[in-house]
Amino acid sequence: MEQEPPVRRRGRPRSPVLTQRKIATAAVAMIQERGHRELTMAALARRLGVSASALYNHVGSKRDIMILVQDRVNREIDCSAFETEDWEVALERWARSYREVYSRHIPLIPVMTVLPVADSPHTLTMYESVAAGLARAGWPVSWVVNAVVAVESLVFGAAYDATAPETIFDPGELHELAPVFSAAVAHRDLLLQDGDAAPEVGSGADAAFHAGLRSLLAGFRLRLEALHRGEQP
Amino acid sequence: MEQEPPVRRRGRPRSPVLTQRKIATAAVAMIQERGHRELTMAALARRLGVSASALYNHVGSKRDIMILVQDRVNREIDCSAFETEDWEVALERWARSYREVYSRHIPLIPVMTVLPVADSPHTLTMYESVAAGLARAGWPVSWVVNAVVAVESLVFGAAYDATAPETIFDPGELHELAPVFSAAVAHRDLLLQDGDAAPEVGSGADAAFHAGLRSLLAGFRLRLEALHRGEQP
Repeated sequence: MEQEPPVRRRGRPRSPVLTQRKIATAAVAMIQERGHRELTMAALARRLGVSASALYNHVGSKRDIMILVQDRVNREIDCSAFETEDWEVALERWARSYREVYSRHIPLIPVMTVLPVADSPHTLTMYESVAAGLARAGWPVSWVVNAVVAVESLVFGAAYDATAPETIFDPGELHELAPVFSAAVAHRDLLLQDGDAAPEVGSGADAAFHAGLRSLLAGFRLRLEALHRGEQP
Repeated sequence: MEQEPPVRRRGRPRSPVLTQRKIATAAVAMIQERGHRELTMAALARRLGVSASALYNHVGSKRDIMILVQDRVNREIDCSAFETEDWEVALERWARSYREVYSRHIPLIPVMTVLPVADSPHTLTMYESVAAGLARAGWPVSWVVNAVVAVESLVFGAAYDATAPETIFDPGELHELAPVFSAAVAHRDLLLQDGDAAPEVGSGADAAFHAGLRSLLAGFRLRLEALHRGEQP
């Protein structure tokens, strides 16, 4: 089996052609499978079938990779409603899409929640859609960042909840410790089983997210109306 | 140095006495340092300086350990205000304490958000305080679970945000992609620097969490008032 010595072939790369897209795709898959702590430049190069130095030609550090990942994942989030809809509808659609994307990318959450947005063009473009939409709707610019953070916080927490078992709140054998809470859980479960009463609700996590999001947005609206009436919010 | 052969000493354990408290403490420390994926029964036994079989005498599985951890961490959360305060004040204090605890235990979040509460007495006792407080205040029992989930989602997301760099939203060299958002970030930063204007606000993350939490609670109040007026919420 050792008859043919390796030959250099002209005009054909000896390892796969690296692109930022390929790097981002491989990094997302690695983090999904093994968690963000296991993602190193060396491990990612192995997965891509290239040398570490080839990878370093494209990205200088793990942080660079994370920014590619951030940009790649955040471009899946739909923020188009800010172009056409009322701010409240637009924020709700954005938040729903955001949660849907991150509930498919749970292991990215610990990284993405603390990663600076500088250098991530799609992330900044998304935030610009949100900020410009809110500003056009009469929101004071000073409220925009807090509103974005509040919606995102709810979204990231709800993305985890979307992947929790439906029975997460079942008190089990300790129900006597928590009679009122146990009754509330039983009541919620009955409502969820009654598809006629809540046809739009899929799971308990969906119902809780929608109720929480609508309450948050109602609170925003109340504060905005108070501001526009000239009251101190 | 090999003069004395090892002797069996009566009445004295040959390895440290294991308690559930010790196991929980070691597990929390391991997850903090190395992430939840690295926590195995074997690794935890090594850290505790005991044999795996000694550890199995106390806990049957990694899931049992996680329940000890959940119970240990959640008992730090202060939900005492439900005994004495208005529901809105009580929910706000609970949420603030909850965020404070988990912002010190960030690596636990991916596990705790999806771990069933059955078998965790302190967690169930906490939920009972919340549920009983809301029920006494006239909340319909059917809203309790959704409200708990919404507050927790906001809290977990905000705990991550509390550990993010203050400059996370700085658009850097790409600011021309996001002019309105960049202006909003600059405006927020100016407000944060002006200690007189917002003396109670520590960081940008604190300000965003408090604004989001108050909006969520205002939305809850609006819905409750509508219900008590007999309107369809």
